[in-house]
Amino acid sequence: MSAFDALVEALRRLPGVGPKSAARIAFHLLQHDREGAHVLAQALERAVAAVRHCRRCNTFTEQEVCATCLDPERDRTQLCVVETPADQAAVERTGSYRGLYFVLMGRLSPLDGIGPRDIGLERLYARATDGEVSEVIIATNFTAEGEATAHVLAEALKARGLTVTRLARGVPIGSELEYVDLGTIAHALVDRR
Amino acid sequence: MSAFDALVEALRRLPGVGPKSAARIAFHLLQHDREGAHVLAQALERAVAAVRHCRRCNTFTEQEVCATCLDPERDRTQLCVVETPADQAAVERTGSYRGLYFVLMGRLSPLDGIGPRDIGLERLYARATDGEVSEVIIATNFTAEGEATAHVLAEALKARGLTVTRLARGVPIGSELEYVDLGTIAHALVDRR
Repeated sequence: MSAFDALVEALRRLPGVGPKSAARIAFHLLQHDREGAHVLAQALERAVAAVRHCRRCNTFTEQEVCATCLDPERDRTQLCVVETPADQAAVERTGSYRGLYFVLMGRLSPLDGIGPRDIGLERLYARATDGEVSEVIIATNFTAEGEATAHVLAEALKARGLTVTRLARGVPIGSELEYVDLGTIAHALVDRR
Repeated sequence: MSAFDALVEALRRLPGVGPKSAARIAFHLLQHDREGAHVLAQALERAVAAVRHCRRCNTFTEQEVCATCLDPERDRTQLCVVETPADQAAVERTGSYRGLYFVLMGRLSPLDGIGPRDIGLERLYARATDGEVSEVIIATNFTAEGEATAHVLAEALKARGLTVTRLARGVPIGSELEYVDLGTIAHALVDRR
């Protein structure tokens, strides 16, 4: 296979990149941004070699334990469970959470064959029952799979004697009721305060 | 910068990849396809090192002159001008062209500051006037920029005494007139045969 075709093949493995965009990206890199191609190659090799999972919270880190878990300023009694590092970053950006995290690196998805073992729920249960954590805040996504995951987690963690809470469902800030979907309004009515 | 953030940055340089999809791709590679990340890094380095331009037709190749230009079966009197290797591949797939190619690796686009020198039109003129070529078939895209490029090429090549033709405009195979845009139908009427 030619070097160009091999590059197109490799690009097609990326999520959301089909044959046409793979060819377009390869053309762009070789014609207009060979420096970018080299930088990307280096970044890929470096990340594959260096990035591993935090032993405590399971997020991506280059150390044995990530900086967040080591931060003495964080509240060790709260544990926020998210699906991915991107979700963790979103919660961090709010600036309104000072506890620790556990990153599932996925969600339960029986249709895709992703069960409790694939996303390491046992590790979460062990982490949450370390004696310091008193409240687990479940911040999985509000999708069908995220909600199912939240349900399973809540049952298991409550059975271990922990206080389990879930991010509030409701009407997003800045939205007009007319354009909010009915399920969201119904939940906001039930959870009114 | 962490290895993960550096990877997201490098992915953002790809055309059509914004910050969210860069993070999604980085997560996918590190969580589910580290082998794919390694394969892509290798393919990028190999392509950057090996791929250059054919001295005759300007397409991507790993040799001094590409296999198509060297093929003794091809008709050396016809030269088809396309914008990109992907367009060349599309013409090849039809199986109905046996001449040679010239790949512009772009198109004239004054708004983007891409002039005749940037897409090496002088090289095309030198190639087309080698004495063997008698007909130049212009197969740039039927976009505003592709049409403008075709116009400039046609004038310059005719002035050099070459027969210049353009891919026929018309109604695409399998389409219903009701759903074809009016400009296309108008052109198909003018070019009727």
